[in-house]
Parts: sequence; structure tokens; C-alpha cells
Amino acid sequence: MFDLNGDKHIPGAARVMQRCEQLAQYSSMSTGICRTYLTQEHQQCNATTQQWMQEAGMKSWIDGAGNCWGRYASANEDASSIILGSHLDTVPNAGKYDGILGVVAAIEVVDALHRNNVQLPFHIDVVGFGDEEGTRFGTTLLGSRAVAGQWQDSWFALQDKEGMSLSQAMESFGLKPEKVSTANRSGDKVAAYLELHIEQGPILEQEDLAVGVVTSIAGARRFNFTLEGMAGHAGTVPMNMRRDAMVTAALCIAQIEDVAKNSNVVATVGKLECSPGSVNVIAGKCQFSLDIRSGKDSDRDAAVKSIFEYIEQLCHDRDINFSYQEIHNAPAVECADWLQQLTAASIADYGLKPLSMMSGAGHDAMVFSGIYPMAMLFVRCKGGISHHPAEAITEADVAVALDVFLDMIMKFEKFYCSDS
Amino acid sequence: MFDLNGDKHIPGAARVMQRCEQLAQYSSMSTGICRTYLTQEHQQCNATTQQWMQEAGMKSWIDGAGNCWGRYASANEDASSIILGSHLDTVPNAGKYDGILGVVAAIEVVDALHRNNVQLPFHIDVVGFGDEEGTRFGTTLLGSRAVAGQWQDSWFALQDKEGMSLSQAMESFGLKPEKVSTANRSGDKVAAYLELHIEQGPILEQEDLAVGVVTSIAGARRFNFTLEGMAGHAGTVPMNMRRDAMVTAALCIAQIEDVAKNSNVVATVGKLECSPGSVNVIAGKCQFSLDIRSGKDSDRDAAVKSIFEYIEQLCHDRDINFSYQEIHNAPAVECADWLQQLTAASIADYGLKPLSMMSGAGHDAMVFSGIYPMAMLFVRCKGGISHHPAEAITEADVAVALDVFLDMIMKFEKFYCSDS
Repeated sequence: MFDLNGDKHIPGAARVMQRCEQLAQYSSMSTGICRTYLTQEHQQCNATTQQWMQEAGMKSWIDGAGNCWGRYASANEDASSIILGSHLDTVPNAGKYDGILGVVAAIEVVDALHRNNVQLPFHIDVVGFGDEEGTRFGTTLLGSRAVAGQWQDSWFALQDKEGMSLSQAMESFGLKPEKVSTANRSGDKVAAYLELHIEQGPILEQEDLAVGVVTSIAGARRFNFTLEGMAGHAGTVPMNMRRDAMVTAALCIAQIEDVAKNSNVVATVGKLECSPGSVNVIAGKCQFSLDIRSGKDSDRDAAVKSIFEYIEQLCHDRDINFSYQEIHNAPAVECADWLQQLTAASIADYGLKPLSMMSGAGHDAMVFSGIYPMAMLFVRCKGGISHHPAEAITEADVAVALDVFLDMIMKFEKFYCSDS
Repeated sequence: MFDLNGDKHIPGAARVMQRCEQLAQYSSMSTGICRTYLTQEHQQCNATTQQWMQEAGMKSWIDGAGNCWGRYASANEDASSIILGSHLDTVPNAGKYDGILGVVAAIEVVDALHRNNVQLPFHIDVVGFGDEEGTRFGTTLLGSRAVAGQWQDSWFALQDKEGMSLSQAMESFGLKPEKVSTANRSGDKVAAYLELHIEQGPILEQEDLAVGVVTSIAGARRFNFTLEGMAGHAGTVPMNMRRDAMVTAALCIAQIEDVAKNSNVVATVGKLECSPGSVNVIAGKCQFSLDIRSGKDSDRDAAVKSIFEYIEQLCHDRDINFSYQEIHNAPAVECADWLQQLTAASIADYGLKPLSMMSGAGHDAMVFSGIYPMAMLFVRCKGGISHHPAEAITEADVAVALDVFLDMIMKFEKFYCSDS
């Protein structure tokens, strides 16, 4: 096992924690963390990250989409790469680790290789994507989709809240919009894309495990439902003559939970609005959202079908008009089997149970699933809380994650050498 | 039976319909009806109403609270009165009949008595209250409570949306705030308070009846409930680890309907807010209202108890923090038994089934229940719709209501004479 201390006085995990704190200071909010694509904070974050990359023996550059790269080069210039990536941008009022940890941990792992003069038969490319969250321009995964060759020119016209277009923002960041395609690495020889990320859920904490193997990234479908009944006076309309949109919505929400608890899905009604919305008026109209996800699209779609059957029957029985919009539909993405096995082996070799789990949240890794072999390593976070200042991890868990992540690379080397 | 034609060419019911249309023109809204307490529109409405009262043989005056009165005097100056009343103010974007019909119909009935030279052993006092809805100052029943001797001096400081106080509004209306107690008639000899009003509900329509007997005015209790669980990522928190405030609220709302359907109450959740309110975030907090009413306080309170037991157990089971505020609690008010019987007899004599029903809505009649014998006659309205421009009644139903209302007065006379 390598020495993972970045400096003889600073254990690697401690430095990772410090660096996450340091990047958290590049924020547009004075009272919390917010760092969005192509801003001054993004610029500062990239500069610091590049410096760390260089200190870890990497050559560093900013690509045509503003993503921050570092290469720990193989002696063989024509070798394939493995990409260790995650994102450096945040949601508003964010935590310090979502995305960031994956970039900083990857640099730390490379630093250990570098200090131990490890020569590899492949390049290691560490990348900090400039946009995953979509906070600034409302469209997610801009950084990783540029790399995956999925950039769409229509995005140049996207505007931020101040009305600045994406192409203007690129120019003010020092990028040339017409050169964004230089970020495209979909044609490169890439042997694997590996992403370390906080779980953003409570499963590892409940199982008392520092890390876990990701099997797939859930495919979400999202709906807006509209139920229309008849508003009426809360005192004068008898119960048996009501067409109450609120009660009908409530029965739907209860049923959605019931279906989800009995299927391989998670389903959430996070938003509900009723009108007229007065204490003494029967709700004539109720609108609510549904977010439903599964690691298996067929399980998810079966649950959606069951939910729709219930709602349609209920609305028919209660004389409620039912309509809906499907506002999102993304397929689930599976991690490469052999990389899952490799990850599990590294966790088992560390002496921990290799728990396999779905990722309910989306990640940069998704966009590479059709292009490169892809896998993810999850790290426990406190209470499953993310997208919130209370997002927290422990140094001890980071130490485990660094060991396992490094071991994954060494196992990959054996696989790579035996394969080629 | 008297001739109820206000003019030989105009049947009484038609004139009532016309007059409701006419008063609807005194509005502060150009696109709908809104006439609130102590405004110019109120002034105009009172002036027209006073003119109609005078034409119907009444002496008319405005009392110290801005209510509009007319007396069809008995020859015996010291006789008791019966008061026929309702209100002349409206909610914003109101219908034409809520309150108004009761005043205009009372004038029409008196007009019939007057044209037929009927002398009565009691005065008939018709009153159009200046405020029942509470639209302008946020406190309801200001007009009738002044008459019932329940005026509170703290009300003078109530302000409208423009910051004008109630006492300033009284002065600009030509009233002296310090003389508001002159409106108090709680010590007068009043033999009965009778109110004709649209049902504001769908029961008479469903039963195909023009009019109905009111048994009681429901006592409402109102609550705001707060459920606090834990917000979380819609994709990453497994169903069995959620503390979802929205699903918990949904189960409560379904149960509230269930309890109400199996009790002698109506219960309504008309308002719900959840936070953070995002499609992809589990709701950490949910607040919803409950309005629950019954003609019998004991039935209502038993239902409230049952609902609370359910919510407390559910929140315990789901690890949800539950808190509430009771924001309103008014006792039910019963109409005088003998006046209910008298009303039923008049309806039966007309040839209709005398249907007895609770009033789920509040009315001016409530404030007189402890002071005078009180009763109400309900008139069918279309679809039970009220507080809305679509509020509608038919001339044919008004004709029935006028006949029945007049017959009630004549039956009252027999009772009064045999009693005194």
C-alpha cells in the first residue's frame, strides 16, 4: 500500500478536508457557498485546483468548456487514459463536498502515485467539471457533456438571471464559444471513467460503512398532475356532494408512497399547490409533482403505470378532471459490471463489506456511460444530507475512500496490463 | 293570500330581481361587485334602500353604525318589533344576492302589507346591515354586532388596506364614533329576528326545493397544523428512511374526510403549503388548515378529538413533529324551535316539503341568538355557488320565498296575538 500522506506532516485525508474548506471560500454568497459556471469564483477555483494538480506532478489545462484538467502522464504518450472526475460547481447555499470531494480526492491519489514515482501504462486525467448542477443557466451537466461530445449549440443562447448569455459568459471567462468542441474527448482512447462522490443519501450511514459500490444511476421521470374539482363553501357543501381536489390529491399522494414502498422505486411528491387556497373554501384545483426513480427503467415504468391507473380510477369515481404533463424522462444508466466488481474487490481488500447501491441522484458519470466504461465509488455523508450547508463527511471516511480509490487504480493497472 | 305585486305591472319577485341588479351597480370594482362597510358605495346603497323603504310605507333611518333601517309601524307605538334583516355589504368579486336578497325581499313583503293596508300589532323593522362579511376591516358582523350591543371599542382602531381606521371611516361616512352605541337595540322589545338568505350550498337544489328551514348555524373550529419531518433528496433517500411531511399530511387529509363522512360534520382542508416545495426534494415541512363545522358542537368536538388522535399517532409512528394552532372556535347557534315550526308550517301551507337544514355558513342571525328568538329561511341558489359572480337565483324561487316569508309574518301575528 502506498503512503497517502500528501506531506510528511499532513495525512492525505486531512489535506483533502482542508482543500474542500479552501475551495468553499470561492463563493458568490457571503453567507454560504455558491459557485456557478463561468464566474469569477469558478476562475479562482480552477486556478487553485490547477496549482494542486501541478504540485501533484500533473500537467494542467483548462479546456474549451472551462473544465479544469490535470494529466499524470504515462511514459507512453499514446497510451489510453483513465479519467477521474467530478464537478467543482455548486448549488446555491451548498455544502462543501458534493462534487468537490471527487476532484480533490483524485488529486490526492495522484499525488501519492507521484511521490512514490509510480509509472503507469495509462495516463490518469483528473477533471473538475465546470458545471454539473445547472445552477446558473438552468441546464445541467454542461461541463461533462462538452467532454462527452454532447454539447448543443442552442445552449449558447441560454441566459442567467442577469440576462447574460452562455456565450457571453464564456467570452468573459476567456473562452472562445466557437472552440467549445475542443473540449470533446468522446473520440479519445479512454479506458475508464471513475468518479468518487458523496452518497447524498443515508444508506451508508445506516449500514455503518465508509464507502459503497454504485450499481447504476437512477433514471428519473417527473410529472405535473392537475386535478380539477369544484370549489365550494367549507360550511355549506355536504361531504357527499363535494368534488374536493385536495382530498383527491391526498389520496393520490398516499397511494404513490404505497406503490413505491412495494416496488423497486423511490417516488416523491415534493410540490403541491391548491387553489383558491383559503381555509374556508373547498379546493377546486390541486396541482402536484411526482419524481419517480429506479435503477431499472422497467421497474420505474411499471410503478408509473400502477400510479396512473389508481389516479384515473379515483378521479373517475370522484368526478375530478385529471390531466398531467411529463416534464422529464431520463433512462437509468448502469455502471460497468467489471468495474463494479473491481470496486467491490478494492473495498473487500480494505476489509469492509462491499455494499452495492443505486445512485438516486444524477452525476457527471451518467454522460459517459455510452462512451467509456464507467464506475462510481460512494462515500458516506452525515444524515444523507446534501445541497445544504450541513453536508458533512469525516476525515476517517475520506482516508478509507482514498485507500480504496488508489487500490482501484492499481487493480485497474493489473487488469489493463493483462488485457492489453 | 296578499297580492305581492309591488306595482300592478311588476310582479314582486321580478322587482326583487331588478333591485338586486340595481344594488350590484354600487361597487368599487369595475369588473365585478365589491361593496364594503362605510364606503361611498355603502352610502349609495343605503340611500337607494331608504328610498325603497319609504315607498313601501316605512319610516327610514341610518343608525349609529351605518346600518339602514325602515319601520313599518304598528298603530301601537309601544309595541314590540320583529326585525327582518340581512346585510348589504359584499365580499370582493361577489354575487348579487348574498345578504342583499334578504333586505330587498323584506322590503317587498312590507310593500305588500302596506298596499293592502295591513295593520299589525307589532312594528316590522327591516334592516340592511352595513357589514357582515368583514371585507374592509377584517372583522366580521360589525353592523349586526352593533345592533346586538356587542360593539367593541377596540374596533375603532381597525384599519383597512389603505390604513384608514374604522373611526376615521365612520366620520367620513357622516357617523360619530362616540355615538355608535345608539345602534344598540339589545334592550328593545323585539319579538323575533327573521332572516331570509340564499342557501350558499347545494342541498335545496339537490332536493328540488325553492326554500328550506334553518335549524342552526354551524359552529366552526379552525386549526393550522404544522408537520415537520426531514427534507431530503428525492433520489437518494430510501422510502423506508423518509420522514416525509407531505405524505403524512396527505394521510391526515384523507382521514379528515373519512371522519367527516362518518360524523355529523363537514370538514375541509382548503389550504396547504409545503417546503421546500421542489419537485426533487422530499417535503420537510407541511402546513395545512382545517375548518370543521357542525350544527351540534358536541358532534364537531368529537370529530376533532378523533382527528387529533389519528394525527398524533400517525406523526408518532412516522417520526414527524406535530404542532397546531386553533385559530377560531365559535359555538353553533340554534334557531328558535317554535320559529322553525312556524317556518315549516308556512312552507307546508305553500305546498312544499319543509326541509330542515343546518346553515354551514355564518349569518347576521347568529349574533341575535342569545337576545331575540331567531329564525332563518333559506332560498335555493344555483349549484350552491356563492361569493362568486356566478351566484344565481331564479325569479320563480323568489316568488315562493316572498309568499312564504309573508305567510310567516301573518302566522307570527296569530301567535303573537294569542300569546299576548
